[in-house]
Amino acid sequence: MAIANQRIVYLNGAFVPESEALVPIKDAGFKFGDAVFDTTRTFGHKIFRLQEHLERFERSLRYLDLKPKYSIGDFTRITEEVVKRNLPLIGPDDDYWIPQRVSRGLSAGDREAWPDWPDTTVIVECTPLPLAARAKMYRDGIEVITPSVRRVAPEMASPRAKTHNYLNLILGDLEVAAQNPDALSVLLDRDGNLAEGKGSNIFLIHDGRLRTPREKFVLPGVSRKVTKELAGQLGYEVEDRDIDLFDAYSADEAFITSTSFCICPVQSINGRALGSTDIPGPLTKRLIDAYVDMVGFDWYAQYTSHLA
Amino acid sequence: MAIANQRIVYLNGAFVPESEALVPIKDAGFKFGDAVFDTTRTFGHKIFRLQEHLERFERSLRYLDLKPKYSIGDFTRITEEVVKRNLPLIGPDDDYWIPQRVSRGLSAGDREAWPDWPDTTVIVECTPLPLAARAKMYRDGIEVITPSVRRVAPEMASPRAKTHNYLNLILGDLEVAAQNPDALSVLLDRDGNLAEGKGSNIFLIHDGRLRTPREKFVLPGVSRKVTKELAGQLGYEVEDRDIDLFDAYSADEAFITSTSFCICPVQSINGRALGSTDIPGPLTKRLIDAYVDMVGFDWYAQYTSHLA
Amino acid sequence: MAIANQRIVYLNGAFVPESEALVPIKDAGFKFGDAVFDTTRTFGHKIFRLQEHLERFERSLRYLDLKPKYSIGDFTRITEEVVKRNLPLIGPDDDYWIPQRVSRGLSAGDREAWPDWPDTTVIVECTPLPLAARAKMYRDGIEVITPSVRRVAPEMASPRAKTHNYLNLILGDLEVAAQNPDALSVLLDRDGNLAEGKGSNIFLIHDGRLRTPREKFVLPGVSRKVTKELAGQLGYEVEDRDIDLFDAYSADEAFITSTSFCICPVQSINGRALGSTDIPGPLTKRLIDAYVDMVGFDWYAQYTSHLA
Amino acid sequence: MAIANQRIVYLNGAFVPESEALVPIKDAGFKFGDAVFDTTRTFGHKIFRLQEHLERFERSLRYLDLKPKYSIGDFTRITEEVVKRNLPLIGPDDDYWIPQRVSRGLSAGDREAWPDWPDTTVIVECTPLPLAARAKMYRDGIEVITPSVRRVAPEMASPRAKTHNYLNLILGDLEVAAQNPDALSVLLDRDGNLAEGKGSNIFLIHDGRLRTPREKFVLPGVSRKVTKELAGQLGYEVEDRDIDLFDAYSADEAFITSTSFCICPVQSINGRALGSTDIPGPLTKRLIDAYVDMVGFDWYAQYTSHLA
Amino acid sequence: MAIANQRIVYLNGAFVPESEALVPIKDAGFKFGDAVFDTTRTFGHKIFRLQEHLERFERSLRYLDLKPKYSIGDFTRITEEVVKRNLPLIGPDDDYWIPQRVSRGLSAGDREAWPDWPDTTVIVECTPLPLAARAKMYRDGIEVITPSVRRVAPEMASPRAKTHNYLNLILGDLEVAAQNPDALSVLLDRDGNLAEGKGSNIFLIHDGRLRTPREKFVLPGVSRKVTKELAGQLGYEVEDRDIDLFDAYSADEAFITSTSFCICPVQSINGRALGSTDIPGPLTKRLIDAYVDMVGFDWYAQYTSHLA
Amino acid sequence: MAIANQRIVYLNGAFVPESEALVPIKDAGFKFGDAVFDTTRTFGHKIFRLQEHLERFERSLRYLDLKPKYSIGDFTRITEEVVKRNLPLIGPDDDYWIPQRVSRGLSAGDREAWPDWPDTTVIVECTPLPLAARAKMYRDGIEVITPSVRRVAPEMASPRAKTHNYLNLILGDLEVAAQNPDALSVLLDRDGNLAEGKGSNIFLIHDGRLRTPREKFVLPGVSRKVTKELAGQLGYEVEDRDIDLFDAYSADEAFITSTSFCICPVQSINGRALGSTDIPGPLTKRLIDAYVDMVGFDWYAQYTSHLA
Repeated sequence: MAIANQRIVYLNGAFVPESEALVPIKDAGFKFGDAVFDTTRTFGHKIFRLQEHLERFERSLRYLDLKPKYSIGDFTRITEEVVKRNLPLIGPDDDYWIPQRVSRGLSAGDREAWPDWPDTTVIVECTPLPLAARAKMYRDGIEVITPSVRRVAPEMASPRAKTHNYLNLILGDLEVAAQNPDALSVLLDRDGNLAEGKGSNIFLIHDGRLRTPREKFVLPGVSRKVTKELAGQLGYEVEDRDIDLFDAYSADEAFITSTSFCICPVQSINGRALGSTDIPGPLTKRLIDAYVDMVGFDWYAQYTSHLA
Repeated sequence: MAIANQRIVYLNGAFVPESEALVPIKDAGFKFGDAVFDTTRTFGHKIFRLQEHLERFERSLRYLDLKPKYSIGDFTRITEEVVKRNLPLIGPDDDYWIPQRVSRGLSAGDREAWPDWPDTTVIVECTPLPLAARAKMYRDGIEVITPSVRRVAPEMASPRAKTHNYLNLILGDLEVAAQNPDALSVLLDRDGNLAEGKGSNIFLIHDGRLRTPREKFVLPGVSRKVTKELAGQLGYEVEDRDIDLFDAYSADEAFITSTSFCICPVQSINGRALGSTDIPGPLTKRLIDAYVDMVGFDWYAQYTSHLA
Repeated sequence: MAIANQRIVYLNGAFVPESEALVPIKDAGFKFGDAVFDTTRTFGHKIFRLQEHLERFERSLRYLDLKPKYSIGDFTRITEEVVKRNLPLIGPDDDYWIPQRVSRGLSAGDREAWPDWPDTTVIVECTPLPLAARAKMYRDGIEVITPSVRRVAPEMASPRAKTHNYLNLILGDLEVAAQNPDALSVLLDRDGNLAEGKGSNIFLIHDGRLRTPREKFVLPGVSRKVTKELAGQLGYEVEDRDIDLFDAYSADEAFITSTSFCICPVQSINGRALGSTDIPGPLTKRLIDAYVDMVGFDWYAQYTSHLA
Repeated sequence: MAIANQRIVYLNGAFVPESEALVPIKDAGFKFGDAVFDTTRTFGHKIFRLQEHLERFERSLRYLDLKPKYSIGDFTRITEEVVKRNLPLIGPDDDYWIPQRVSRGLSAGDREAWPDWPDTTVIVECTPLPLAARAKMYRDGIEVITPSVRRVAPEMASPRAKTHNYLNLILGDLEVAAQNPDALSVLLDRDGNLAEGKGSNIFLIHDGRLRTPREKFVLPGVSRKVTKELAGQLGYEVEDRDIDLFDAYSADEAFITSTSFCICPVQSINGRALGSTDIPGPLTKRLIDAYVDMVGFDWYAQYTSHLA
Repeated sequence: MAIANQRIVYLNGAFVPESEALVPIKDAGFKFGDAVFDTTRTFGHKIFRLQEHLERFERSLRYLDLKPKYSIGDFTRITEEVVKRNLPLIGPDDDYWIPQRVSRGLSAGDREAWPDWPDTTVIVECTPLPLAARAKMYRDGIEVITPSVRRVAPEMASPRAKTHNYLNLILGDLEVAAQNPDALSVLLDRDGNLAEGKGSNIFLIHDGRLRTPREKFVLPGVSRKVTKELAGQLGYEVEDRDIDLFDAYSADEAFITSTSFCICPVQSINGRALGSTDIPGPLTKRLIDAYVDMVGFDWYAQYTSHLA
Repeated sequence: MAIANQRIVYLNGAFVPESEALVPIKDAGFKFGDAVFDTTRTFGHKIFRLQEHLERFERSLRYLDLKPKYSIGDFTRITEEVVKRNLPLIGPDDDYWIPQRVSRGLSAGDREAWPDWPDTTVIVECTPLPLAARAKMYRDGIEVITPSVRRVAPEMASPRAKTHNYLNLILGDLEVAAQNPDALSVLLDRDGNLAEGKGSNIFLIHDGRLRTPREKFVLPGVSRKVTKELAGQLGYEVEDRDIDLFDAYSADEAFITSTSFCICPVQSINGRALGSTDIPGPLTKRLIDAYVDMVGFDWYAQYTSHLA
C-alpha cells in the first residue's frame, strides 16, 4: 500500500498521507451519514471565495448541532495549508477541489477501540478536478433529465445543509444513469418544481430573464450566487422562484452551476431542445465570459482544452 | 493504540481487530451515507432469525442497486464466524448486536490512494447490547415524544430500506433530547401519522387490538413481525394501519419493538399517560412473556437485572 | 380519397365507411376532450366481456354527466353489428379493438354549420390489434420507466373515468420515449406510488403475492379484474394497495395488463432487473396460461407468432 | 346540409366552408384532447394583440412537443386571411373570436382511411362573440362560485398550456351550474388558492391594490396582462400572489378578465357580496375605461347595448 | 325573563332552569371553543346507547387532556336524571337530544369575577328533536353539496374528537346555504375524499355494497356503527374506505346517518341524481326498516308524520 | 358571589359587572366557537391603534359572514367607554387588554329560554395584562418549541381570522407544556414552515435582515406590522416569507411580537441557542427601543420592573 507522492490530508489535528486518512467504521459519519461538508476549489491554483464557503459550512454545522472545536479562522488556515502542501502534486493546468468535513465522530460507547478519537471528526482534503471527463459537456451541453424520485422536502431535512446524506440524490442518479449514463439528474421538489442535482444548481433563461429555484429547496451554491451577481452587473433580471417543467420546456437557454462546473450549458431537458440551440447560448456565453473575467482565470478554456 | 482483547471485525475479506476496522474518507458510505446495513442479535449467545434479517438486508441492497459479491449464504457464514470469534469477550449475561454493512466503497476516481479497496465495502461486526443503560425503561416505560420534523416520505427515499442516511431521524432525536434526554423520538410521517424512531417500531393497543404503522412508512422490523405473530397466536387482532395522535392519546397501552428492545413498554406519549398505567400494561406483559418463551431466553430479566 | 374495402364505423345513427367518420371541429370531444370511451376486443373474432366494458363505460358517462340516448343494450347491439360488418376485413389470425365513444357533441351555439349534429356524438368503431408491433415485448418483457410527471389526482379528475383527456399520460410518454422509444411509461401518483400508463395496469409479485395499485388511482381494467380472478383461482393472494418504487425494485416478477396486452411480462423497472430474470417469470407464466385457457384462445401464441 | 353564407375555416392548408371543417375520429385531438389552441379576438373588426397570443400559443406547442410546419408568421398571415374572409358575415356591431388550433393529427397507424391527413392538424377559425348572452353580467356583475373539485396541479399538467384537455374545468362547471346556471366557476388550486375558470382569470382589489393568482397555477391571459399594465399606468399596485377565500371574502371589488370578457365585474363570491356593492366598483370602472381607451373601441358599450 | 315550564339543565353540580344555564364570557369553552361534547337521544322517551356515546365522549376528553372529576358512571346517572326531569315537558310523539359537555372552564387568572367556577365546566341538557323541520328530507331525500373548503386534517386537529370547534364545518355550511338553503354540506378531506357534514356521516351504495369514509377523517358516529352492524346482519358488505366524487356520481343509493337522522336518504350529490331514483332506495329502505326494528320504535314514521 | 369593585363589561347593549357577563350555553360562540374577536391594549392607560384592530376585526367578521348591528364607530365608542369605566380599578403601572367579541348568538330554535337574546352576541371587556408573570421572559428570552401538530391550513380555515376556534393551537400548547411549562409553542404550517403560536408572531434575524412568516399562514398581528414599520425606518430589510427550521437554527436573533408582548426576545428554538446569545440581541434591542419611543411609553421597563 505504499503510494508515491501521495496527497496530504488534514485529519483530526494531523497532516497525514491520503492513504492513512481513514475513519473508524463506528464513526457517525459512516454509520449514519451524520456529517456535513463544504467544498471550495482553486482557479489557477488560487483558492476561490473560501470565506463564503466556510460561512455556508457553519450554517450546515448549526443545522445539525455539530460543534467542532474549530473556528472559521481555523478552517481557513488548515485549508490554506492543505492546498499549499498538495499543489506541488498537480500540473500547472490542473486545479483542486478542497472539501472540509465534520462528522459527529465517535460517541462514548463506540470509542472503546479508538479511545482517542474525538466526538467530531474533522477532515480537510484535496481532490483534482475531473477536467477531461467533463470537457465534452462544455462543447455539447448537458443533457438534463428529471427522475421520478422527488427531492427530500425541507420539513424532513433541509436541502440547504450540505450533508453526508446523499441517498435521495443518488436514487435520482440511478434512475437517470440507467437511461443515459451521460445525462445529469435534476430532481423535482415535492411540488414538482425543479430543485437540484447532486451538488449542482440549474438556471433557466426566458427573454433575457434568469430564473433559478428558491433557496428553500436547494443548496445555495456559491457559484449560483456568483452567477446572480454577474447577471445583475450585466443588466439581466434574476429571480429565485418556483420553476417547473413548463418553464423548462419553454426556456431559451439553461445552464448548470456548481463549484467545479462554474457555468456549464444545458443541451436539453428530458430530451427537449431549448429555444436557442447554440451551445452555449448567447446569454450563457456572456455569463461564462464574465465569470472567467471575474475570477481572472479561463476555466472554460481549461475544460475545453481536454477535447481531443 | 494497542487495545487488549479487542473484538474482531470482518472487513472486505479479512478478520481484523476492531481498532483496525476503518474505511477511507472517500468511501461512499462515509461521503454520502451510500450504504445499507442490517443488525441481528444474540439471545443467550445464540443468533436470532439471521435469515430474516439477511433477506431484509437484500431488499435494502436492491433498493440502492448495490451488488456486493456476497450471497446471503456468505453473509450467514461470516456472521456466524464473527460471533464465534467475539463471544469469548463478553460475560455469560451479556449479548451482542451483529451488524452487516455494505457501502458503495470507492469509485474508480477515488481509489488512487487505496488501489485495492473494492467498489463495495463489506463489514460484519459485533457490539455489546446496552443492557444497563436501558434497564430503567423496562421498569418505568419509555417516554415517547413526537418531534416536529416529519419522517422522509417514501417518494423521496423509502423508510423500508435500512441505510446509512439517518439525518432525518437524528434531527428528530435532537429536538426531543433537548427537552428530555431520556425520551424516545418517534417521528410522524408526511400526513401526521406515527411512523418510527431511530431503529424502532411502535405499537398501540385499543380494546385488545394491536395497531402499528403501515410498512410503507417504516422499517419493517423483525421484532415487529415476531410481535405480530405472537399476538396472533394469543388471539389478538393485529392491524397495520395509519395511526395518529388521536389514536395515541386514546390508547390503553403502547410499546416499542426493535431488535435490541424486543418489546419495551411505553409510559407516555407527549407527556400523556396511557389508559393503563401499569408498566408493562397487561396485554404488553402477555406479549413480553410470549416473546421470552418463544426465544427461550429471558431477555426481560436480563435487562431488569441491571436495575440497582 | 376512395379507399377500397374500408372498415365501417357507427356514427350518430348510421353505419358509414371509416373515411367518412369525422366530427366537426366544434365538437366538444375535439375542443375540450369532453368525451368518454371504452374499448373491448375480440379473441379469435369473438367479443370478450362486452357487458363489463359497457358497465364501466356507463360509470364514465355518469362521472361527466353525459346522457346519450342509448342504453347499454343499444351499445351492445351496435357493437355486435360493427364487429360483424368488419370481421370480413381481417384475416383469421387477426383481431379487433372495438371502441365505443360518446362526446358532448355540439352545443346550441356551435351547431350553426351542422344543424343536425346531436348534443352527444356517438361512435362505435373497429381497429385491428397491433400484434406484430408488440410481439417482441412478449419475448423480452416490457421495459417500464416512471417519468417525473405525476398522474392527475382523483380530486382533480378521477383516473377511473376513461376519457378523451390523455395529456397527463402523454406528457409521461414523451418523457419516457425521449430516453427509450421501446419503453412503457407508468406514472406515479401524487404520493409517489405506481399508478398507470396509457391504458394499462401494472402488477408486482413478491413471494407469490400479487399487488396492483388501488382502483382509486387507476382505470380499473377489465383485464386487471380477470387477472385477479384467475390468480385467486390459482390460490395466489392478490391485493389492491399502494405500491411504490421500493416494492418495484424488490419485486420477483411484474407484468402489465390491458385489454389488448392481456398479460405482458415486464423485463425491468427503471432499468432494474427483477428478481426472476425469466421472461415471463414462473408465476406470470401460470397466469398467462390460465388467461389463455379462460378465454379459450391462445392470444399469447397469436402475439409471439409475429416474431421473426 | 347546404348552409348559406357560411363562415370559412382554414384547415390543413385549405380555406373551407365551416360545415366541411371536420376531423377524423382518430385525430389525436379528438381521441386524447392532444392539441393546443389560442384565441385572439377583434375589436371593431380589428385583430387585437395577435403576436402576444401566438407567442403564448408557441409555448403551449412546445410544452406538448407539437411541431407543426407553421411559423408564427404563417399563423399571423392565415389568421388575418381568415378574419378578412369572415368579416362580411357579421354586422358592424359584432366581433369575432379567432381560435388557432394544432392537434397531433393522425399517427401512422391511424392514417389508413385518411392517407393524406397530416401528423399535425392545423385549424384557424372564426366564432362570433356571445355579446347578448353576457350583457347582463356587465350590469349585475358575475356570481362567482368555487366548486369542490381542485384545478389540476402543475406537476401533472401545467395550467399555463392552453390545451384541448378541459375536463377538470368542466367538472367544476358542472358542480356550479347544478346550483346556479348563471354563475361562473373559479376552481381553487391544490392548496386552496383561487386559480381560474374555463378561460378566465380573476382579480381581487383590497385598498387599491390588485391581486391575481400566480401564473404558475393559471393560464397567463393576455387580458390579464393588459389589465396589469393599465393598472400600473393608473398608479395602482398589482401583485401576482396566492389569494384564498379569506382574501375573496374581504375584497373591496373583484373582476374577471378574458379575451372576450376584457374586464367584467364580479357581484359576489360564494354568495358573499363584496365590500363595494357598486357594479362595477369604482376601481374596476377606472380599469374598464382605461381598457376601452387603450383598444380604442367601446366594447363595454357593445356588451351593454344588448340589455333590453 | 320568567319562562314557564322550563327545561332543566345540569350545570356544574346543580339542576337549574335552562334560562339560568349560562357560562362566564371567560370560560375556555366560549373564548376558545376549548370543550368537547357528545349527544345521545331518546327513542319513544328511552335513551339509546348511552354507554357507547359516553365512551366516545371519554376519547374526546382524552384527546384534549380534559380531566373533569366525573366518571362515565357519573355522566350516566346525571344524563338519566336530566331526561327524567325533562320528559314531562314534551308530548308523547316527541323526543330529545341529550348533549353532555365539558369545557376547560376558568383558568386561575380568569376566575376573579367567578371565584367558585370550576376548571372544567360540566353541562348535561335536553333539546327537543327538530322532527317537523326535517320531515321533508325523508320524503324527498337530502340534497348533498360538497363545498370547496376542505375538512380540517387529522394532523391539525382530529375530526374524531367531537369538540366545540366547528368553524371549519360552518364555513362549509355557509358556502352551501348560499346556493341552496335546503341542502346539506358534506366536506371533502384534504385529499378530496368525502368526509363529513356538521354532525353527520355519509354512506354510498354500489351493487349492494356499502361504503363510508374511514374513521380517521370523520367523527365515528354511533348511528354509523349501528348501520354497519345492521347491514352486516342483512348480509351486505360494508367497508370503511376513501370514497371520492367518482364514487358519489356512480352510486346506486346514498344516505346520511346521525344520532338524530338515524338514516335519511340522499336525493342527489352536487345536483346529480343517484342510480336509484326511489326515495328511499331499496337497500336504504331495508336498512331503515331494520333500524326501526332494532330500536323498537318507528322513528321513520315519527318524522314523516309531520308531512302535512 | 358579591365581588367588590368589579370590572365592567359591555354585553349586548348594557354595561354590566363582570360577574354578570355570561352567555347562554346554547350561544353559538360556546357550542361551536362560532365567534370572532380582536384585542387591543392600553399603554400607560391609553388605547393603542384601536382603528387598526377594529379593521382586522371587521375582516374576521366578514370571513365568517357575521353581521352584528354595530359599525366600527360603534365599537370604537364602546371600547373607549369600557376602558374609561375600568381604568380606576388598576394601578398607574398596570395596563389593560380590551377584547371585542362577536358570536353568532342564539339561533331561532335555541332562543326559547332566552327570548330576548340577539342573533349576534356582542362583548367588550377589560383584562389586566399579566406583567409579573412574563417579566422573566424579557430577561432570559423565550424558549420556543415547535410541536408536532401542524397549524390548520388556509384551505380549511384561514389563520388570518381571529376566531374562538383555538383547539389547534391549544393542542400545540399541550405538547409543549408537557415538556417545558415555561416554553412558548410556535406551530409549523402544513409545509413545515414556522407559523404562529397562540396569538403571537415570530421574527428571525439573519445578517441584519428580518423575516417573518407570510400573512397567508398567520394572524397578521398589529405589533407585527408596527415592528415591520419600525425596522424599515431603522433601515433594516424586512421580508414576509416561508421560514423553516433551517432558518431558525441559523438565525442570529429571534423575537416574538404580540399585542401584549410588543417585542419579546427569544432565547432558543427547540433548545438551540441563537447566533447572538445576548438577551435581547443587538438588533432586537434597537427595535424594542424604537417601539418604546414610538408608543411614548416604556412598556419594556414596565415588564422588567416585576423582576426580583
